[in-house]
Order: sequence, then structure tokens, then C-alpha cells
Amino acid sequence: MSNSSDFSSLPRPPAAGRPIDPFIVMDVMSDANQREAAGEDIIHMEVGQPATPAPRAARERAARAIAEEKLGYTLSLGLPALRERIATHIQDSYGVRVGTERIVVTAGSSAGFVLAFLAILDHGDSFGLPSPGYPCYRQILKALGFRPHLIDTDDGGRWMPTTEDVDALAAAGAAGLLLASPNNPTGTMAIGTRLPELADACSRQGLWLISDEIYHGLEYAAAAETVLAYSDAAIVVNSFSKYFSMTGWRVGWLVVPEALTRTIERLAQNLYIAPPTISQVAALGAFDGIDELEEIRSRYARNRSLLLNELPAAGLERILPADGAFYLYADIRGLADDSVVFAQTMLRDIGVAATPGIDFDPLHGRSYLRFSYAGAEDEMHEAARRIATWLKTR
Amino acid sequence: MSNSSDFSSLPRPPAAGRPIDPFIVMDVMSDANQREAAGEDIIHMEVGQPATPAPRAARERAARAIAEEKLGYTLSLGLPALRERIATHIQDSYGVRVGTERIVVTAGSSAGFVLAFLAILDHGDSFGLPSPGYPCYRQILKALGFRPHLIDTDDGGRWMPTTEDVDALAAAGAAGLLLASPNNPTGTMAIGTRLPELADACSRQGLWLISDEIYHGLEYAAAAETVLAYSDAAIVVNSFSKYFSMTGWRVGWLVVPEALTRTIERLAQNLYIAPPTISQVAALGAFDGIDELEEIRSRYARNRSLLLNELPAAGLERILPADGAFYLYADIRGLADDSVVFAQTMLRDIGVAATPGIDFDPLHGRSYLRFSYAGAEDEMHEAARRIATWLKTR
Repeated sequence: MSNSSDFSSLPRPPAAGRPIDPFIVMDVMSDANQREAAGEDIIHMEVGQPATPAPRAARERAARAIAEEKLGYTLSLGLPALRERIATHIQDSYGVRVGTERIVVTAGSSAGFVLAFLAILDHGDSFGLPSPGYPCYRQILKALGFRPHLIDTDDGGRWMPTTEDVDALAAAGAAGLLLASPNNPTGTMAIGTRLPELADACSRQGLWLISDEIYHGLEYAAAAETVLAYSDAAIVVNSFSKYFSMTGWRVGWLVVPEALTRTIERLAQNLYIAPPTISQVAALGAFDGIDELEEIRSRYARNRSLLLNELPAAGLERILPADGAFYLYADIRGLADDSVVFAQTMLRDIGVAATPGIDFDPLHGRSYLRFSYAGAEDEMHEAARRIATWLKTR
Repeated sequence: MSNSSDFSSLPRPPAAGRPIDPFIVMDVMSDANQREAAGEDIIHMEVGQPATPAPRAARERAARAIAEEKLGYTLSLGLPALRERIATHIQDSYGVRVGTERIVVTAGSSAGFVLAFLAILDHGDSFGLPSPGYPCYRQILKALGFRPHLIDTDDGGRWMPTTEDVDALAAAGAAGLLLASPNNPTGTMAIGTRLPELADACSRQGLWLISDEIYHGLEYAAAAETVLAYSDAAIVVNSFSKYFSMTGWRVGWLVVPEALTRTIERLAQNLYIAPPTISQVAALGAFDGIDELEEIRSRYARNRSLLLNELPAAGLERILPADGAFYLYADIRGLADDSVVFAQTMLRDIGVAATPGIDFDPLHGRSYLRFSYAGAEDEMHEAARRIATWLKTR
């Protein structure tokens, strides 16, 4: 689909279109899907979604609900049983007790970010985003009339912000910091005392701290810590999409300070009515599928080891070992000037779809490419083989 | 849950909370559900949702997909097959041909409004909303930094705006008009030549026209017309929630001018990623359940006739015969000063839940009460019986 539209036929042509960029990974997926439909053999390493369906326990619960329940609207904050189950999950995972009234079920983490930003920001407010990071953070902020304040990070610091960054944010008048550990696209984590230090710095500076914990449960060295262990004022965003393997179901959750629950509820009532009921029921069932999910995690761990061996051998030499999630972030300098062209050519030539870093980092992203290793093990091996042959002969 | 929260513990206490009101019907539902859980016998006439689940064909399709498919993300604009099926539905329903590229599958009409407003409005823009109307219109506008411009309508004009209202909107600098026919909460429709006249007036004045057609298919006299028959520049919002009986599935659609599709796609990619996949699959199946849906519509028609007979006899004398949807809007002046108190007392005394008009009309809503007749026939009869006894003895 063309990027330039003819707005002249519209009642009130937007002056310069909307100030929103595409979520490039979705465009790459669209291109890859079209090639697949045309008969090409595509390996999908572009989208951050598991190759597996929801765990059996989730699917069985959903199937039973379809047979037996009406599946009308739930309350806007979500099914009470699911909110309680999430509180138990938080206690089991981190040993942190959080009241059910602080938990809000959302239509995926996407809705979580929209609700959190609308609840705490005023028009024109800026918010600190470590870069590279999940592209929708900045696009959602811009679409809603807020301003992303990018914080440049690098591989030497495991792509994590510092307490000095928090001080600089406050000096610049930003309203808060968004932290993702494990991070997308790099897979790196805030290790050692970084998380409590950042929480303290935000508290000292009177800044909001939003912790995107969507990749929790997918760590390959140390377990991720929750910001809830260090702050009652932080907002946690999480989802059933990644560890629980339920992307297309669009269900996630927020943990918010209790004083925000009613504001979030009102926003949710009006903007969403409620998260999809069948997905909430399935999510309840997913907690009974932990064994299956742990097997999936073992596959990610094997994929990660495989790629960390084979991609450097294939010619992609600069990859920081990732602590979690299911991404590798490859530095392609020396191989190409522009990862956008590199990704397009790679998809066209060998059917391996990956996402150019420009999606995650407007500053330096043309030097990087993100590979998702959430796919099947044999696909990872085949992708590395194709890349090796391709890089040798191009 | 208390309306007043202690914000002092938050990093940056919002000055006056957020400028968003509750969607009162969801609060009434919450109250009614709590009473029901405590053993009270509640008749739900507060929420605009069918008492029926999705049609069998939709549920069977969803169950099959759960057994056989991965159900990952779809494309942001929705499943291509569903977009095509919706285009066919539009042709079948109205004889209007609309290209598939103009159809956007959304996470319910809620997402449709968010996407439409964000695609066409700039910060601070005002938008014309006939009052009474669906409360989320004005709350969504306010939450996103836009301004509702209420247009006062009355029962003499079947609660529909006029071309003079459009001229006044333009003179006031508003960006467009939102029209809902059949209307919520009144059930009334734009009849005769009103719809093409309004479309022409908007076109002449260079105003956007958003047509909320969510209650199409639920008419009891003349069939509703689509604005698509009169304008290529209008935006249509629709959903599988009402006629298709799929509220909790959160799936709907937009028809947009082709020049807007790419803007909407970018917004959808970032704010939603995609509508719930299982719900899109179920929606595809719903088109095979038309016989069942027509039976449901017959029940609504019987409920409507029953209540139009029995409510006036019970003491609620001023109800305009509704043309469509599944609502009656009762004028309670003479019975009480404030429909909020009236609704609370009615729920407490006789377990009949209805929604005070203040949710739909900040100006005159305290004189009105909305009854949804989407429930079971025997419940409608029982509700009228309880109300008759209650009004006689209070």
C-alpha cells in the first residue's frame, strides 16, 4: 500500500497527515506474508511472537467457555477471578504481594500503555524512552499528543538507562521514564542493582516509572526482578502474549498505584468497554499450562544458543549475548550501510524476514537488525544456513 | 470503589484527576452484578448487550480455530477474508459496493472511534455530538484531547440533528458531526430524507461525517440507510456486538475514505497491533448464522411491543416509540426529579437495573431513564410487573 495518500478528496485534508510512523515490523510481516502466499518459503524472524499457540489448558478453557457461556462484556477492569489469579502469579513469581484492586486486565499491553499514558500525562508532556526500544512506545505517545524523550543507550551499558539519565530527564522537565527489562529489541536486562537504583532515582526526582515487564518469564541467566519490589508508585505493564504464548488473543494486565485504579477504570470503560471475554477466560486457563510454557522456554533457550553460535559463524559477528526475551540485535556495520535495505534484500533473496533497527532506534537503527528466535528450532538452523550462504556470495 | 482517590502518594499528582467521567452504565452493571452475586434477583436492563451468546455458526468456527490454528497476530487492518466478507455484507444489506481496501477490522466500535478521531482531528478540535447520545463519544473525545460540541435534540425531532445544526457546527468551527441512526439511548432513526440532507450539508460545509451504524439490522419499521450511499468521504463505524450478538468478543469495523486507510493502519499497528484473532474468526462464522440472528431480532421486536404496552400502563407514560436498536428512553418527569436517584432506588427496591439518562445527556438526562430490551421475553414482562407494583406503592 502506498505511503502517500491523496487527501484532496477528504472533507478537511490533514495538513501533513498524522504525526505517526508505521510500526515497521507489521509492514515487514505484511510483505513476508504476501511472499508466503505467493509460494515462497519464508522464515519469520521479524515478529515478536511465539510459533506456538496458547497452551493446551488455555485452549481447553476457552473451548469450554464457548460451549457453555454467553461471553458478554466483563467488568472494565477485567474478570475478578483473573485479577485475583494475576495477583497470585505475582506473589509466586517474585514473592511480592499486590492487592487485587491494583490489577487491571487490559486488551494486550497495547491497551496498557494507552491507559497508563492517558492516566498520568497532560497534553504536551514528554516521557523518557531508552533507545533502542519498542517502537510503539513513541508512536503511542505521539498519537495521543505527548512527546517521546529518547535516551540514547549503547551495548556497553547493555542498552539500559542510568540514574544520570533519570536526573537529565528531570532537568529536561520530562514526566517519567519507561524501562523495559528484558528489553526489546536487544534482549538485555537491568542487572545487579540497576533496577532499585532507577526506581530510587525516579522517586527522588518525582518522576513516574513505567516498567514494561512483558518479557518476564523469558530469561536465560538470572531471573528478572519486578519494579513492584522497589516501588509502590511505579506502573507495571505485562501481557499474556509472550511467556504465555497468546499474542493474537490481546490480553494483558497493568499493576497501578491504588490511587490510579479509578482513573484507569473510567478510561477503560470509555475507550475499550472491557478486554475480550474469551481471551480473559483463556488467560485464566493459561496458568494451568506452566509445564508446557516451560518447555517452550527451553526451546527459546536452545534457539538462542544455536543462533549465538551460528550467526557469528555466518558473518553476523557483532551480537551481544541477550539475557532474556527472544531477540538478538545484530550490528550490521561492515556488511551494509542501511539495515532497511539489508532486510528487504535478505527477505527477497533468501526468504528470511527480520526487522530493521530503525523501527526501534531512530538514531542508530540503520546499523542494526533484530532477529526474533521465537520460531521453530529447525527454522533457526535453516535461517543461519541461508544467511551464511547468502553473505558469502553477495 | 470510591470516586475520590488519594493522589498524594503519586510521583506527580494529577492536578484535578483526569478529565474523564465514568461510563455510568458500567458502574450500574457493577452494582447490579454485586447484588446478583449476593443472591438478589436482578433483571438487567442497564447494559446494551444481547442476552444471547454469539450465533452457533460463530461459536463453531471459533471452537474449530482453537483446535486447529495458532491464532497469532493478524494484519493490523484485520483478516483479509473478514474484510472481504464485510464488503459483501455491505453490498447485500444496502446494495452499495465498497472496496475491501476501505474496510478496517477493529477491536469493537470502541477502537473504531479512537482510530477515526485520531486519524482526522488535531488537538483541541471540536466535534458535533447530538445529545442524548452514546456517552463514550464525548468521553473518548475528551480523553484524547478533543472537545465534544453537544447538539441539543429533542423527542419532537426524533432526537436527530438537522441541517441547521450542521451549519451552526461549521459556524462554531467544529470539525465534523457524529450521527447515530438508530440512536442510543432513544432508538430513534433519521427518517425520510434526513440522512442524505445531513450528508450534503456536511459536504457543503467541509465537515467530517462519522456515521455510527452499530444498530443497523435492528430496525422495526423501515430499514436503516447507510451513509455510504450518499458520501464517499464519510466514515462508518460498525460492530459485531449488537445485531451479531457478540459484545464480549470486541470486534467491529470501520469503512473509511481510501485516502485514510494508511493513516488508520499506522494508528492501528501502534495502538492495537491487531484486533483479537479468535474474535475475527468467530465474526467470519457469524455471517453463517443469519437465521438465528433474525430469530433474536424477532424477540427484540416482541420485547419492544410488550414494553411499549406495559410500561405506560405501569406508570412510565412518556416513551417515544423507538424505530430501532433495543432501547426505550422514558421521560420520568412527574415521577421523580432525578433519574440517577430513581435508578438507584429502583435497583435496590425491585432489582430492575436501568441506566439514568445523565450518562447520555449531561443537559437533560436527569429527566430520563434508558431501558434496554435485549433481554429475555419473560424478564421484560416481569420487569414491567415489578415496576407497576413499585410505582403504585412508593
